[in-house]
Amino acid sequence: MATTVSVATAFLVDTQTATFAELPLDCGVTLLNVEVAYETYGTLNADRSNAILVLHAFSGDAHAAGVNRETGQPGWWSQMIGPGLAFDTDRYFVISSNVLGGCRGTTGPGSIDPATGEHYGMRFPVITVNDMVRLQKRLIEHLGITRLLAVAGGSMGGMQALEWAVAYPDSVAAVIPIAATSRHSAQQIAFNEVGRQAIMADPDWNEGNYYDSKPPARGLAIARMVGHITYMSDGSMREKFGRRLRDKDAFGFDFSVDFEVESYLRYRGSQFVTRFDANSYLYITKAMDY
Amino acid sequence: MATTVSVATAFLVDTQTATFAELPLDCGVTLLNVEVAYETYGTLNADRSNAILVLHAFSGDAHAAGVNRETGQPGWWSQMIGPGLAFDTDRYFVISSNVLGGCRGTTGPGSIDPATGEHYGMRFPVITVNDMVRLQKRLIEHLGITRLLAVAGGSMGGMQALEWAVAYPDSVAAVIPIAATSRHSAQQIAFNEVGRQAIMADPDWNEGNYYDSKPPARGLAIARMVGHITYMSDGSMREKFGRRLRDKDAFGFDFSVDFEVESYLRYRGSQFVTRFDANSYLYITKAMDY
Repeated sequence: MATTVSVATAFLVDTQTATFAELPLDCGVTLLNVEVAYETYGTLNADRSNAILVLHAFSGDAHAAGVNRETGQPGWWSQMIGPGLAFDTDRYFVISSNVLGGCRGTTGPGSIDPATGEHYGMRFPVITVNDMVRLQKRLIEHLGITRLLAVAGGSMGGMQALEWAVAYPDSVAAVIPIAATSRHSAQQIAFNEVGRQAIMADPDWNEGNYYDSKPPARGLAIARMVGHITYMSDGSMREKFGRRLRDKDAFGFDFSVDFEVESYLRYRGSQFVTRFDANSYLYITKAMDY
Repeated sequence: MATTVSVATAFLVDTQTATFAELPLDCGVTLLNVEVAYETYGTLNADRSNAILVLHAFSGDAHAAGVNRETGQPGWWSQMIGPGLAFDTDRYFVISSNVLGGCRGTTGPGSIDPATGEHYGMRFPVITVNDMVRLQKRLIEHLGITRLLAVAGGSMGGMQALEWAVAYPDSVAAVIPIAATSRHSAQQIAFNEVGRQAIMADPDWNEGNYYDSKPPARGLAIARMVGHITYMSDGSMREKFGRRLRDKDAFGFDFSVDFEVESYLRYRGSQFVTRFDANSYLYITKAMDY
């Protein structure tokens, strides 16, 4: 298995960008000059019937497989997408699309608003999962595909896969939603709301206008810590961390790290702020809640 | 039942304070001039054998029953403690003690350090549940009681009740721990850690030195919101809030309140900061994690 993955991830890929003049949204606003970052793996067959769209989870990006030519990094699903793998690129043409509202090459609150020449910030319209899927539909049309063999994704990607089945039933043969839901429960909304409030409580958030200054790193880190608790069950946290102390034999009787789980959360929070935009956090969680 | 409660809560009570010259702590430090706020209901019998200690949950105070003479407010357990009620004050002498490290009349980080004449802030020593119980033991000795008939409490109060059984088995006949645990799981520690980090991320926290300026209200509100999610199960949140919108028929497509559960959490967070000290939040959650 290790050898297979090693071979599978050996192919080099570039993230590409498609641009659409306009995209109508559920809120009534029409976005202009919408860019979407995507990657493709494998070859589209003659009758254009072997295309599979894969969609990332909350904080992911378009780089799902292969090795990025610039960064040398494997994709987030490299063990699943490639020659001979589950999503076999010898047979399928796999498309991975970044999400609308994000911050990894697709139009979002951190993008420049063509109407003003400035970052959208909180002037970016509030979007829905259906809006995300509408942009993906444009992308596959742009790639010459009328009907997808499948749409697959986990977590938020799975929510989008379900939305594909509802919004474009004639354009997709199958959906593969993994660890997903068709609607957030009160508890899921509650956790997202805490994350949003943590960001907006950070003075550096500055009503979303921080692109030319210091981003709200502390608030975003807190939001990510909350998120990471929800990514694991009570049982799996017990198994992974238990009450183990971090690099000490006894309680420290201070407010540095005592427990492994504290160290884990702090690390996850601090790492996240280097690669994610706080306003995107607000917009994407809101879309999922809707 | 309504009449019973009404009669039961009709008696007036005053919160009292006992002071102890010193209290040794698990961390090795000895606290000086330790004050503890408490109330009593009913009468201690001749052989001092009818005393029951009740202990509040995380954010509670000593005012468990009756009506506070100054504020006119009922206690947090008025429906349980009083003449003819579960904790029948015609039969039992009920003592309610505020918790060490708190901010409702008992020594905590917001108290004045006799050594410096200034607020302890983060110079307050890190305490444990055992330390809380040690102070309660001093209190019942001060009241002339050698052995309690019972120690009862919910949540953090229940953790203290369990600690009573371990630390002073000869001084308590029975413990009544409700919705409690003998040790926090990784997930419970994780939620507490997020709350602590939210407070410490607030610039107004200022390393705990805010008693003469603006307290870290935003961070404390976030911490409380996290707490409130953990006080309800997924199922009870579904039942109580579901996906109901707050005062609107359709999504607002903005970041004001859409869902009932968002409104609830924001309200709970904003209310809490008017009555609780952020440093106490840090110290008491740490004690529970330990």
